[in-house]
Amino acid sequence: MARIRASIIGVRGYTGRELLTLLLRHPQVTVTGLYGRVEQPVPIAAEFPVFAGRTTLEVRPLDGAAEGRNTDVVFLALPHTQSMRVVPGLVQAGCRVVDLGADFRLQDPEAFARWYGVPHADPAALGEAVYGLTELNRERLREARLVANPGCYPTGVILAVAPLAREGLLHEDEAVIVDAKSGVSGAGRTPNPGLHYPEINENVRAYKVNAHQHQPEMDQELSKLAGRPVSVTFTPHLVPLTRGILSTLYVRLRRSLSTEELVGCLQRAYRGEPFVRVSRPGGFPEIADVAGTNACDLGAQVDGTRAIVISALDNLLKGAAGQAVQNMNVMFGLDETQGLR
Amino acid sequence: MARIRASIIGVRGYTGRELLTLLLRHPQVTVTGLYGRVEQPVPIAAEFPVFAGRTTLEVRPLDGAAEGRNTDVVFLALPHTQSMRVVPGLVQAGCRVVDLGADFRLQDPEAFARWYGVPHADPAALGEAVYGLTELNRERLREARLVANPGCYPTGVILAVAPLAREGLLHEDEAVIVDAKSGVSGAGRTPNPGLHYPEINENVRAYKVNAHQHQPEMDQELSKLAGRPVSVTFTPHLVPLTRGILSTLYVRLRRSLSTEELVGCLQRAYRGEPFVRVSRPGGFPEIADVAGTNACDLGAQVDGTRAIVISALDNLLKGAAGQAVQNMNVMFGLDETQGLR
Amino acid sequence: MARIRASIIGVRGYTGRELLTLLLRHPQVTVTGLYGRVEQPVPIAAEFPVFAGRTTLEVRPLDGAAEGRNTDVVFLALPHTQSMRVVPGLVQAGCRVVDLGADFRLQDPEAFARWYGVPHADPAALGEAVYGLTELNRERLREARLVANPGCYPTGVILAVAPLAREGLLHEDEAVIVDAKSGVSGAGRTPNPGLHYPEINENVRAYKVNAHQHQPEMDQELSKLAGRPVSVTFTPHLVPLTRGILSTLYVRLRRSLSTEELVGCLQRAYRGEPFVRVSRPGGFPEIADVAGTNACDLGAQVDGTRAIVISALDNLLKGAAGQAVQNMNVMFGLDETQGLR
Amino acid sequence: MARIRASIIGVRGYTGRELLTLLLRHPQVTVTGLYGRVEQPVPIAAEFPVFAGRTTLEVRPLDGAAEGRNTDVVFLALPHTQSMRVVPGLVQAGCRVVDLGADFRLQDPEAFARWYGVPHADPAALGEAVYGLTELNRERLREARLVANPGCYPTGVILAVAPLAREGLLHEDEAVIVDAKSGVSGAGRTPNPGLHYPEINENVRAYKVNAHQHQPEMDQELSKLAGRPVSVTFTPHLVPLTRGILSTLYVRLRRSLSTEELVGCLQRAYRGEPFVRVSRPGGFPEIADVAGTNACDLGAQVDGTRAIVISALDNLLKGAAGQAVQNMNVMFGLDETQGLR
Repeated sequence: MARIRASIIGVRGYTGRELLTLLLRHPQVTVTGLYGRVEQPVPIAAEFPVFAGRTTLEVRPLDGAAEGRNTDVVFLALPHTQSMRVVPGLVQAGCRVVDLGADFRLQDPEAFARWYGVPHADPAALGEAVYGLTELNRERLREARLVANPGCYPTGVILAVAPLAREGLLHEDEAVIVDAKSGVSGAGRTPNPGLHYPEINENVRAYKVNAHQHQPEMDQELSKLAGRPVSVTFTPHLVPLTRGILSTLYVRLRRSLSTEELVGCLQRAYRGEPFVRVSRPGGFPEIADVAGTNACDLGAQVDGTRAIVISALDNLLKGAAGQAVQNMNVMFGLDETQGLR
Repeated sequence: MARIRASIIGVRGYTGRELLTLLLRHPQVTVTGLYGRVEQPVPIAAEFPVFAGRTTLEVRPLDGAAEGRNTDVVFLALPHTQSMRVVPGLVQAGCRVVDLGADFRLQDPEAFARWYGVPHADPAALGEAVYGLTELNRERLREARLVANPGCYPTGVILAVAPLAREGLLHEDEAVIVDAKSGVSGAGRTPNPGLHYPEINENVRAYKVNAHQHQPEMDQELSKLAGRPVSVTFTPHLVPLTRGILSTLYVRLRRSLSTEELVGCLQRAYRGEPFVRVSRPGGFPEIADVAGTNACDLGAQVDGTRAIVISALDNLLKGAAGQAVQNMNVMFGLDETQGLR
Repeated sequence: MARIRASIIGVRGYTGRELLTLLLRHPQVTVTGLYGRVEQPVPIAAEFPVFAGRTTLEVRPLDGAAEGRNTDVVFLALPHTQSMRVVPGLVQAGCRVVDLGADFRLQDPEAFARWYGVPHADPAALGEAVYGLTELNRERLREARLVANPGCYPTGVILAVAPLAREGLLHEDEAVIVDAKSGVSGAGRTPNPGLHYPEINENVRAYKVNAHQHQPEMDQELSKLAGRPVSVTFTPHLVPLTRGILSTLYVRLRRSLSTEELVGCLQRAYRGEPFVRVSRPGGFPEIADVAGTNACDLGAQVDGTRAIVISALDNLLKGAAGQAVQNMNVMFGLDETQGLR
Repeated sequence: MARIRASIIGVRGYTGRELLTLLLRHPQVTVTGLYGRVEQPVPIAAEFPVFAGRTTLEVRPLDGAAEGRNTDVVFLALPHTQSMRVVPGLVQAGCRVVDLGADFRLQDPEAFARWYGVPHADPAALGEAVYGLTELNRERLREARLVANPGCYPTGVILAVAPLAREGLLHEDEAVIVDAKSGVSGAGRTPNPGLHYPEINENVRAYKVNAHQHQPEMDQELSKLAGRPVSVTFTPHLVPLTRGILSTLYVRLRRSLSTEELVGCLQRAYRGEPFVRVSRPGGFPEIADVAGTNACDLGAQVDGTRAIVISALDNLLKGAAGQAVQNMNVMFGLDETQGLR
């Protein structure tokens, strides 16, 4: 089979670096283009010395036309509100697109405008985009032309709650509570006062309390799964580490379950999944076991009619670049684990 | 006024070190005795080089009799279940005692036996001990002979919930949810596989999920404040830093409040308190602002009928040694902030 | 005795924050003015929440005239090349000045111009400024009107080498080698790409290899002590922590010494010094024992005719604000340890 | 070509885990046996949850006979002085052996006894073992039956000095100075008081100053390369991170060179090497660029007749498991980069 030709737009961030790392060692992929905010072509190894001796690829300036040529799939790792201006041209050029940004995740253009502050530039495409949470939407991904790769927080949260939502276990009149602890790479590579080393080291802080733009994405997907409106209370926190998210969820249940029943529900849902692992009763995931991998680990315990569900993933892998490659594998009919082990 | 003569039993742990640091610079205190698990007297500066050149005090072996002599107040920083064997003798010798361990915090000897695995050695004293959360029990502390200094987690949690409990704002049929993120010094100075540097660094994990021995302490105190049983769902997490706890609480309210009303409730409760600070609406505490201080910072926001309340403190100071000194100041009629600023 | 009135210019950096912390708890000082780059007066507690509830002082805009009024001593914590424009006016207004910047450390205006890239604005004052390494220049500090507080790296290095230089133990034809490991707070509070959390965490890197502006300061002072030109090879490194510098020095000796003789030489030099501690043979300092204190710890070992000398200090305290207060204590005839223990 | 059957003895440490990670994804290898200090067989995924879902292999107890069966190559990752008791049997059983411990690195049995405190159990094998610094001994590795994989510190140091030693650039009468900064995983997985999280975090300390057991290994190899005795002054330091070593070397040269000449010497030596990268003049390596890879990065600068050479590597990869796999690739005639990219 011919190798897949892949390009990355927005390769100079942490997600772009991670994507390139994965694609360079993927046995079925040839990277044909790298694009980013540069004035003129510059070797990627000058931007990220970790690539020295491994590739001579250059980052080229964003052009608007070149990006769609000579490539089968384009990955976009751009700041919010930028990919919606680029995607239509790429799709028209015949490329398949995996957008790692937020622009095509919300199906409701008004919700997009409310959370991202600008009207959507391509509202018609919102309905076509497939939400790329691989384990939930595998079938639709096979033929997708445009994949909206999920946010790092929603990936871990939706995987944790989906089995309960599907089985009708969520209590009607109470939101799911999500308390998430994230490493700093999720905030991107641009320095700012709050991410200056001495401000993060030996510190923990909440931010965007119940006002994070990943919240409507969770609401949308969980509501679909539950078949009725579900809304999440979401408090993200920054903790002093680079990679990984641990989300602790407090879910009110419609009826009392044992911990064994709850864990069993999760295990059934993910039996055979290569990248979702469920701890036995009494066990819980931790970041160290998923960092550097494409795994999302889950564990759960019951306290009366409340479930405590914990999920852990690497925000740059299963939460971004890893899931993007997993989606690409599905889109092109490859073994889903190719290049991810 | 004569200086207070103070001793520390169990000085070789992190809490003991912190206590000694505070007492050495306290203008009204002379440290007269240090005791710990040593075979023979050893300079404290050999145990903790940070004290070199600052004190020639020696740690002496625990003796059972000497500790109560020549001292007005004894601080105990011993592992759980050890201080209950030492305290009766000290009280009988006429000392006033601040126990930083857990042995005298629970008033119900059965709860103690259930959570700590052994019957209580001095159940009669449980009723006499004053729970040393200074802001809540200041009056009773003045004459107390035995103070049960609160645990690090309960201090931040109870201060956050107390105003709501007192004002009858807690919903009846739902526990308070506490999601706490703690630095590692709270786990003590004894090495173990889970606290080995590479196991904590770049990791976050929950532990003792809904099974931590600080939970009944929260239940007990919040129930007293609310005037009816309150039970807490408590998930502690270890995060990669040395000092500090950030607790994020999700509290179901009896009625809808605005964020301003909720913050106002906290502000009224702690007006004039030197060590509790309440952030304005929209602001939240972080560990960096309390580390190295005796402050407990609070911030809050409302989401429908759920309050998100965040508290931050230094587990070794307001969560242990700092509050112990604050209590001593109250017990001996000193300015409460002496030696703590 | 009347309290000393003290002001800080440049209070919004990490050094300024540390200075204010020290001065607020100094029993002989009243802080009368805070100045910084602000548009209009702003409470220091808004800039640094750690001060909330402890002071209502405001940061006022730099003015050029107000700073010298109503104050006995002014501390400057400004970026390089800024204090030389401010100091003359302050001295003329009758204030005593402690400059924590680099502008008055080098006595040779040409060296200043070469290392800092601009001609010196006040070369006449260079001769008058006293180099504020307290242990070496205590007598001259008593009457000093202008004190050039040493750099963080030079403090630890000069204290380590001074006894050897004075006793004529340095080999003639070889520089002292200084390999320093520094926490990140030394690089200041302004965010930049190299100090972004994920770039420092899990990383170590050398910077300004043999080209750091603190090098001529070491050369100047060590040459004075040795009575002949001494030049240093200096490689600073950034390590992932906030506070502290550990410097490992490799010093070629004129003659073979035992480790005991070498350590004895250091011990004699610093006998009775409250803030310099020398480890016994076989012991070495570490950052954890000096962080948060004004101590500089030293340890040494001999390998043939090479001495390995290690020094540790807190870059914000003995390496900056702590030493500045120590100098103030000397200048105003106070106990040198006031406010520093 | 048939896949190589590989076993690991001592799989429960950090090096063993890393080896298994590499071997599981190596396209030409099948892992046939895992051995460690266990009482009875236990899934490796129970020991290291990161392997859950990736392998069902079990760790079996060390047996003394089984380990050599059904395997082409055995990797030993045992504490010092243990592999010398196991290796003879393995070699006799016809296996090829890569020993990641220290037992076969020193060719002089007296040096071994002096540094490791016990006489060598198999002195005859010392002469046969090939020192597995791949770039220097590639030819001898092809036929080697027993490979002594280098220590983590020596790998980075020897690669940095080898080109200078071979070209006769080292000054006669002065040792090479090595100042190394290491992450904590190099100290192994067994907890001890000095490696307890709060003792490493926010700390830097030197240890085994000029007394580390890796020193004679450097002396031996550099002396061979220089053709005369070379002795190293070696100060290792622990810094608060998990993976990586940055070594800063101060090398006295026989004659003055320009930085360009020095860098050119390094570049010539490693042209075409897949895992050694040399920075251009003015550039220096850092740990972040090598962590997680098998690269050893070098950079250099001249100060008079002294060279400052900096090397960086991942102590668990190029410093241990990565180089072991690189050696295996050479031993079995595979592309040297197989499984390492």
